[in-house]
Amino acid sequence: MRTTLKGKTKEVIIDTEGPVIIIGECINPTRRKKLVATLEAHDFSYMLELAESQISALADVLDVNVGYPGVDDEVLLPQAVKALQERFDIPLCLDSPNPRAIEAALKVAEGKCLINSVNAEEASLQRLLPVAREYGAAIIGLVLDDDGITHDPEKRLRIAEKIIDRAVRAGIKEEDVIIDPLAMAVSADPDACRVTLETIRLVHDRLGHNITQGASNISFGLPDRENINNAYMAMSIMYGLTCPIANPEKITGLVRAADLVLARDDYAIRYIEHYQSNLKH
Amino acid sequence: MRTTLKGKTKEVIIDTEGPVIIIGECINPTRRKKLVATLEAHDFSYMLELAESQISALADVLDVNVGYPGVDDEVLLPQAVKALQERFDIPLCLDSPNPRAIEAALKVAEGKCLINSVNAEEASLQRLLPVAREYGAAIIGLVLDDDGITHDPEKRLRIAEKIIDRAVRAGIKEEDVIIDPLAMAVSADPDACRVTLETIRLVHDRLGHNITQGASNISFGLPDRENINNAYMAMSIMYGLTCPIANPEKITGLVRAADLVLARDDYAIRYIEHYQSNLKH
Repeated sequence: MRTTLKGKTKEVIIDTEGPVIIIGECINPTRRKKLVATLEAHDFSYMLELAESQISALADVLDVNVGYPGVDDEVLLPQAVKALQERFDIPLCLDSPNPRAIEAALKVAEGKCLINSVNAEEASLQRLLPVAREYGAAIIGLVLDDDGITHDPEKRLRIAEKIIDRAVRAGIKEEDVIIDPLAMAVSADPDACRVTLETIRLVHDRLGHNITQGASNISFGLPDRENINNAYMAMSIMYGLTCPIANPEKITGLVRAADLVLARDDYAIRYIEHYQSNLKH
Repeated sequence: MRTTLKGKTKEVIIDTEGPVIIIGECINPTRRKKLVATLEAHDFSYMLELAESQISALADVLDVNVGYPGVDDEVLLPQAVKALQERFDIPLCLDSPNPRAIEAALKVAEGKCLINSVNAEEASLQRLLPVAREYGAAIIGLVLDDDGITHDPEKRLRIAEKIIDRAVRAGIKEEDVIIDPLAMAVSADPDACRVTLETIRLVHDRLGHNITQGASNISFGLPDRENINNAYMAMSIMYGLTCPIANPEKITGLVRAADLVLARDDYAIRYIEHYQSNLKH
């Protein structure tokens, strides 16, 4: 199954057979005081720097989250999208819990964006699916519903099925629903990663959809986090993760290595491309 | 299934349910000129240093290979074993293509060693199985036979079954056969790692034996090898690798992270033990 996203002109294809596509996570105010301060001053230069460094580190898509306490992201998110698209021809992933901000950003965005995210809560489905349909966007379907978060992988699978079913009935193409199996911190729950890995396997094997996750936080609260993120990322890719949301400066080498050992990178061309891009920094 | 090895007094249990046991690979003359030079001078001090640093980096078992061109390892291997066991109480993995060296080392070794390795060639089975039986050693069964190396995972599985069957008929306990699925360089064959990963999955799911591999060389000839080794190690552990032969100074963090995300390390105790041991270096 293939999901196509588009910047102003550039298409990016996310294919369930790989190779893995990286959605850069760094345009996000969480733990980035400088981003908050510059955005508050209506200054997009630091955000554009974050975009540029992620693209240099081989991000294929950029997540754009400009939410922080007190912001009106119905105004700021579309401005950020415009500023990014004036400079870069890369598909965007619009990241806000505020549906009005998503809609306002889609109004000004060129190409085909990804919405981060829709979930199986009735309010989310009813509000966001028509918006995705109207603007031709793809969606990330996060596997939680009005009952909250389940720790049973089979139930997470059924929630994924529900989101896909409702999206298709709303007129969205099946392949435009990317499932997020909901990665959580292993320090809070020893079983958290195992449950999410099993969800990835089930979604890949039974539904065959593309799969994303924001996995940098699974190691929250533990030392030497890179080892944990690397081990978990490699395992997730083996089970069917195709478009992680991550920091490309930290994860691209591991991701390209995963594709290489899974025989998705003949002559190691993409692996060596990463190595060479790294040498330039 | 559980394989028990023993040093002079210390037992190490390798369990197919994990956690992963690390067999330190560094006592090996390949690309270690200093080890060759000191061994040629009948000086074991550098070998003992290599043992100590691996134990500090949380190796559970030490591979002992003292083969280099021109050496008489029927003499040297038993001497090395004695020198190691005078200083350290850790199980040993005797590594030589020369069955007489293995037998000579087993004669002097205390505890219960692992033989690296037996394969399904008729000569290997006939020569080494009675030796393992006589000295109560466990064996690594390497999945190649008189027809050489196959690239078909199902055939590798059948070779593993043959080694196990012949070992049991020779009086060796089933759990004392650890399978090596034969990791090879991905630069020489883009499909090499995929074939070995699939072999690991088949051996784990259908035979339920412990699985080892010397995987540091899968990245031979490529830049930035650690990424490739890390991705491959995490995937191998997820499929059933339980006792890799590796450099603990490079791989222990990743291995313990893999156990953590697979929910085999409650309260992250073993992960944090590694982090703390690392701080001391």
